[in-house]
Amino acid sequence: MTNMPISADLIAEHNAPQIEALQEDYDALGRKLARGGVDIDAIKARVAAFSVAVPSWGAGRGGTRFAKFPIPGEPTNIHEKLEDCAVINQLGRRTPRVSPHFPWDKVSDFVALREEAAALGLGWDAVNSNTFQDQPGQAHSYANGSLSSQDAGARQQAVEHNIECIEIGRQLGSTDLTVWVGDGTNFPGQQDLGRSLDRYLDAAAQIYAALPDDWRMLLEHKMFEPAFYSTVISDWGSSILAAQTLGDKCKCLVDLGHHAPNVNIEQIVARLHRFGKLGGFHFNDSKYGDDDLDSGSINPHQLFLVFNELAEAEANPRDGFNPSYMIDQSHNVTDPIESMLSSAETITACFTKASLVDRAALHAAQEANDTMMAFQALRRAYTIDVAPILAMARMEAGGAIDVLATYRASQYRARKAQERKAVGLGAGIV
Amino acid sequence: MTNMPISADLIAEHNAPQIEALQEDYDALGRKLARGGVDIDAIKARVAAFSVAVPSWGAGRGGTRFAKFPIPGEPTNIHEKLEDCAVINQLGRRTPRVSPHFPWDKVSDFVALREEAAALGLGWDAVNSNTFQDQPGQAHSYANGSLSSQDAGARQQAVEHNIECIEIGRQLGSTDLTVWVGDGTNFPGQQDLGRSLDRYLDAAAQIYAALPDDWRMLLEHKMFEPAFYSTVISDWGSSILAAQTLGDKCKCLVDLGHHAPNVNIEQIVARLHRFGKLGGFHFNDSKYGDDDLDSGSINPHQLFLVFNELAEAEANPRDGFNPSYMIDQSHNVTDPIESMLSSAETITACFTKASLVDRAALHAAQEANDTMMAFQALRRAYTIDVAPILAMARMEAGGAIDVLATYRASQYRARKAQERKAVGLGAGIV
Amino acid sequence: MTNMPISADLIAEHNAPQIEALQEDYDALGRKLARGGVDIDAIKARVAAFSVAVPSWGAGRGGTRFAKFPIPGEPTNIHEKLEDCAVINQLGRRTPRVSPHFPWDKVSDFVALREEAAALGLGWDAVNSNTFQDQPGQAHSYANGSLSSQDAGARQQAVEHNIECIEIGRQLGSTDLTVWVGDGTNFPGQQDLGRSLDRYLDAAAQIYAALPDDWRMLLEHKMFEPAFYSTVISDWGSSILAAQTLGDKCKCLVDLGHHAPNVNIEQIVARLHRFGKLGGFHFNDSKYGDDDLDSGSINPHQLFLVFNELAEAEANPRDGFNPSYMIDQSHNVTDPIESMLSSAETITACFTKASLVDRAALHAAQEANDTMMAFQALRRAYTIDVAPILAMARMEAGGAIDVLATYRASQYRARKAQERKAVGLGAGIV
Amino acid sequence: MTNMPISADLIAEHNAPQIEALQEDYDALGRKLARGGVDIDAIKARVAAFSVAVPSWGAGRGGTRFAKFPIPGEPTNIHEKLEDCAVINQLGRRTPRVSPHFPWDKVSDFVALREEAAALGLGWDAVNSNTFQDQPGQAHSYANGSLSSQDAGARQQAVEHNIECIEIGRQLGSTDLTVWVGDGTNFPGQQDLGRSLDRYLDAAAQIYAALPDDWRMLLEHKMFEPAFYSTVISDWGSSILAAQTLGDKCKCLVDLGHHAPNVNIEQIVARLHRFGKLGGFHFNDSKYGDDDLDSGSINPHQLFLVFNELAEAEANPRDGFNPSYMIDQSHNVTDPIESMLSSAETITACFTKASLVDRAALHAAQEANDTMMAFQALRRAYTIDVAPILAMARMEAGGAIDVLATYRASQYRARKAQERKAVGLGAGIV
Repeated sequence: MTNMPISADLIAEHNAPQIEALQEDYDALGRKLARGGVDIDAIKARVAAFSVAVPSWGAGRGGTRFAKFPIPGEPTNIHEKLEDCAVINQLGRRTPRVSPHFPWDKVSDFVALREEAAALGLGWDAVNSNTFQDQPGQAHSYANGSLSSQDAGARQQAVEHNIECIEIGRQLGSTDLTVWVGDGTNFPGQQDLGRSLDRYLDAAAQIYAALPDDWRMLLEHKMFEPAFYSTVISDWGSSILAAQTLGDKCKCLVDLGHHAPNVNIEQIVARLHRFGKLGGFHFNDSKYGDDDLDSGSINPHQLFLVFNELAEAEANPRDGFNPSYMIDQSHNVTDPIESMLSSAETITACFTKASLVDRAALHAAQEANDTMMAFQALRRAYTIDVAPILAMARMEAGGAIDVLATYRASQYRARKAQERKAVGLGAGIV
Repeated sequence: MTNMPISADLIAEHNAPQIEALQEDYDALGRKLARGGVDIDAIKARVAAFSVAVPSWGAGRGGTRFAKFPIPGEPTNIHEKLEDCAVINQLGRRTPRVSPHFPWDKVSDFVALREEAAALGLGWDAVNSNTFQDQPGQAHSYANGSLSSQDAGARQQAVEHNIECIEIGRQLGSTDLTVWVGDGTNFPGQQDLGRSLDRYLDAAAQIYAALPDDWRMLLEHKMFEPAFYSTVISDWGSSILAAQTLGDKCKCLVDLGHHAPNVNIEQIVARLHRFGKLGGFHFNDSKYGDDDLDSGSINPHQLFLVFNELAEAEANPRDGFNPSYMIDQSHNVTDPIESMLSSAETITACFTKASLVDRAALHAAQEANDTMMAFQALRRAYTIDVAPILAMARMEAGGAIDVLATYRASQYRARKAQERKAVGLGAGIV
Repeated sequence: MTNMPISADLIAEHNAPQIEALQEDYDALGRKLARGGVDIDAIKARVAAFSVAVPSWGAGRGGTRFAKFPIPGEPTNIHEKLEDCAVINQLGRRTPRVSPHFPWDKVSDFVALREEAAALGLGWDAVNSNTFQDQPGQAHSYANGSLSSQDAGARQQAVEHNIECIEIGRQLGSTDLTVWVGDGTNFPGQQDLGRSLDRYLDAAAQIYAALPDDWRMLLEHKMFEPAFYSTVISDWGSSILAAQTLGDKCKCLVDLGHHAPNVNIEQIVARLHRFGKLGGFHFNDSKYGDDDLDSGSINPHQLFLVFNELAEAEANPRDGFNPSYMIDQSHNVTDPIESMLSSAETITACFTKASLVDRAALHAAQEANDTMMAFQALRRAYTIDVAPILAMARMEAGGAIDVLATYRASQYRARKAQERKAVGLGAGIV
Repeated sequence: MTNMPISADLIAEHNAPQIEALQEDYDALGRKLARGGVDIDAIKARVAAFSVAVPSWGAGRGGTRFAKFPIPGEPTNIHEKLEDCAVINQLGRRTPRVSPHFPWDKVSDFVALREEAAALGLGWDAVNSNTFQDQPGQAHSYANGSLSSQDAGARQQAVEHNIECIEIGRQLGSTDLTVWVGDGTNFPGQQDLGRSLDRYLDAAAQIYAALPDDWRMLLEHKMFEPAFYSTVISDWGSSILAAQTLGDKCKCLVDLGHHAPNVNIEQIVARLHRFGKLGGFHFNDSKYGDDDLDSGSINPHQLFLVFNELAEAEANPRDGFNPSYMIDQSHNVTDPIESMLSSAETITACFTKASLVDRAALHAAQEANDTMMAFQALRRAYTIDVAPILAMARMEAGGAIDVLATYRASQYRARKAQERKAVGLGAGIV
């Protein structure tokens, strides 16, 4: 790891003038927590062991059907994306894995790609297939769906693509395949709602059959977009029934922006866990639809409540409980590196606050139907400013106390703007 | 049936001047349908065989937490409610069954009540338990839940009440128990989301165990209200997983107003059918929440699409497919008899239009990914004015051509306003 | 008009075998309406005078941020789009105007373009500006907004572009400028919510100042997308306050898919009319967000209720009441010509049904608080199958009785697929 | 104030063992803030000057249309409610005013009531009228609306009731009249949407005309409930147009639970302020509809963003800017005193965090389109645990450091359960 994109010296240099204040804040919080019987160093150790993956595609600027506004220095291939992900992990220390998307991240030599990542301190998370777009020269179009398409050729092609993704993943060292399909309809009657699911289940079973023993298949539901009347796997109900149909290695993935308005997502998390099917998360935030905003930027309390369910699940695990965590955001108006640094911090903060809930007090209040005190047990943990714990854990692992300021000081993006080729305007589709 | 509330003579008298126009419209529609290869008399026969239950409580004026505005002549006990339901069925001919709610409809002699209904031409539909309110003198409060309550006494009391409802239902001739609980929380943390479901499932299993062999237990989910943060059985996913856990005789009930905004309800119907758990419907309409408005008054097209799924399900039945249909509305601003007459007409119209879909053309278009023609297959049926078929079927069965006009001419409500005791103002709770 | 894309002979040939049945259905409906005192020919005359514009961009296949799936024979420039629009109007007869979008539809000679359209039987509707995308070589980016941008250069550029649109519109014979901006934010704090509006109002006033006397400026609000936290003109409240600030020639445009979930759009129409600011409509339908689905395909009853408000407004006009009607849809899965033919039919049907409401009965019931009969006055009109009136009006004007079948028989798209250059895959942005 | 419900000794006794820890936390936070140039004592002084009113009706247990579950010791008249409000203010020190509701709080001698409140340390906030319920013996029913009713007698009665409320308010020392009406419809067509507003405006103008010079009339909009199809004043657009029509003394009130799903409420606050019509708030929280949950219990970040807009407004005041703050919650599952203590704390915390935003940094980032740093300026303030500031301000004013623990130690509710008459079961309306 001698060729890391950010020099350790730069990080140390920027940390130096902040260490005293951090220590003071950390100690003050430590005394406060100690009064409640909590050892801050134990919490810090939990934080140090926590991680969340980043998506390769998240390193690029996102956009909408209306436009994409690129920024200078954006990555345009998986090698550049890995380098950006390395920056995020170097500074923040919570994101040691990258999740690839195919064919976007296709290379000729995946063994070499695995080594390239390792040299940057990065491993590989879930492999993502893509059957929502047509690629040049593709034999069958996904215009009418992929795994659920009425066209047997399109279904077969989608199955084979997923199996190829598994093979690539084996070379990279992944053990999860995430399957999200945009299949659905824009008109009542366009397809039969029952038969579409039958076709999906049949095709998905072929992928499942190709899964190595130690792999999982993660199904990702989404309410709408790109389909606007019906979507085959539109909600957690469809997702868990499909996962039950497919088998034990199939689990459900929760993307925080893929639900109907007002839905209680933390209860969905609890339900999936209760029935042994909680596979993982795509973290982001949203106000309207699948907005793919930065995690916790709109509703950080909801993210805390999700982690509260995960803390309960950890204390009451079901067979095979091992949720995978990933950021999945569309960075339309920020530098993606900055957004992922900030988001990893927010996610870790919610994890930390959930760890600080006095569960004995919470459960006692629940048992006594003492609603106010049960609520206060959560609220008191949520209110704590855990930033000193996060910063201390980061610094001790070689990361930056102030990740954004250090990143800016590095001039990394400006350098890349010199080195990398420019990205064209996204014309928008409307 | 000599003492029916509306005289057959009155109905006949009001029908007489309308028969000629009805026959003309019926014949014109018959010629139009014949051009498409459809026999209008066969459709009329299907309509004549169609029925939907009415709820006993729907005969009274509804209200909100803010107020209830009673009307003169409202029924105040099950005997008066039965009489009103008899009026609805006499005029409209599509609502021969009544669904009771206990303890609201409790009497000392249920065998006599069954005979009383039979004398009015009415049978009994699903029995409804009530564990969302406390009754005077009740040993345990449902303030903190019923089947899912942390209080074992409340759970046991709720189980026993449901078993008592089954026993009453046997005396009445019902074969379905509908279980809706308002259990849930108003604060994050108030109860553990996982353990609440465990308690619910355990208590529900005790009710299930008491079910006669030929009975079904229908679980009704609801997103929110009376609980405003979480609800134990909040969505179809929770409902079907609970029904799977409980056993084959347990099915899911769909109330059209109990879903998150924008949700595709017809797809939920298709999903429940696909997994063998579609038990029935509570028909109403809504714009915002569980508004309990008149069926099809806000979105009649959605109701048609639900019946389109039912027509597909009928053509592709799963084991035990036998959905129960019921109106469940809160009549806050109308005469409940008029609303149920109008609603039964709307529901039957949607059933009829779904019967008129050219399914061969629909399926062929779906197979060919001919989206526009698949959509048109549905839209052409939806556009047809089926009123003449409904009116003809009604008249031939002894009902009224114009149900509302005949009802008004009968002066039924005015007579009841003389006979029945007045209902007090609903003070509202806020 | 000798070079129309569809031959009049073809239309006549396809109409011939359908005329008898159409006449029979028309006559039967005429007798039914006559019984209620309505003259079907008078209604047909109203229909014949009704029109709705089509958008030039709607002639191309739409897409989402995930993908666009082109179809063979899509138009790629304004000349081809005009030809497609001429097909729609030839067959359907209700869409004699085209609404252009700049710079997409830019040509060197707009006078010639106007003549080209006229030769195809087409006029020009509202001119649309585009400040939500950057164009190659543009001096200032709209990445951070246009009329509301903090960057004075971007604001000025956006103002000048709109003024250029007015100038183009004058050459084309338009009298409306539609202004929709995607300006907004993705993060709390990204911009000051108040100052953003101030900048928008200031820039919009410069455009308003350039408006010819007989022109109108139509402001189009939208809840979200492309901005996902806040949008400067996000709702009708912001829109009408902006229109009031700008002046009498500024009105509000209602796009049916730009509202929050559950919102009562027909009441917004009534409110805008009440305060003299109802400028027009972008018709489409949606289930989730700005889905841009075919008009009335999801909720035709809502579209009817909108036209019911327009019928009330027509009977109680405010100063300058002259709403402009336009289709604005994204045709992701259909042939755009077919979707616009079908949509124009649906829109016209809703207009016709609203014309058939017995307003005297409606108002009398409202005056008497006779809720059921007021509702029935609307419902009875909605239930009528008005297809014969629409088809007769179409045929008499030279259009097709069955627009979709005639279009398919024409093989128009297949011919264009031979003549026109192919469109590339939309790669998606995610 | 010698007869306050909670003894000062009890408060002091419970504070004593907590003072040292509080001082330590306060000092640590003070050092942290000082590093950023913020004087913690100045912030504490702002907190000490902050207040929010409580509603008299909020002192009782709330409920839904399904049930109300009373608690022992609930207040049943305004005298008991005042006593409970005095407890809240004694312990929390941020709620020195009570907002009354008529006729619920009617007494024979309002001058005496004002003195009774003053003796408890309480003043009076906005007067609330009630025209959504019928009272026994009332001449005209509000079943079909009040200020917008088609019935002139009902309108006149509603006007006179509001004028009587003003008169009562003058005796109590209030200067605001809050007008919320439930007027609306449950069926399309039930009333004309335009004429309903005309009648509302005409009646409201009569109330406005009776307003003393130094009074304000606050209009409160609500999307739905008790009306479920349309509501006369359903959104902020209708509210501000009505307020503009009525005059300068008429302003708009924002209840956090009265909006469509997903709506950006803080932008509505900014818009109302921009056009000089921001009158005040009803604080609560919601997940689904008008859930009336405890303030900030579901989405505390949204509450912070609202206060951030208020901080901007305070820095950029418009004529007459003086928003009134009130809690308006329905306490269905908690002791109302505990909920209001907790809510006042949460509201004050959000006010405090908004005060801690580095506005110079925020504005500089906004000016530079530095989205990430603009967001961070808000997020850094939100993350701070301000509890020590709030507790210190409370203690210094004679309140409790731990309000809930001190309240429980007081045994106040248990004493009242002995003294006060029991409340009957709320039967529910359904």
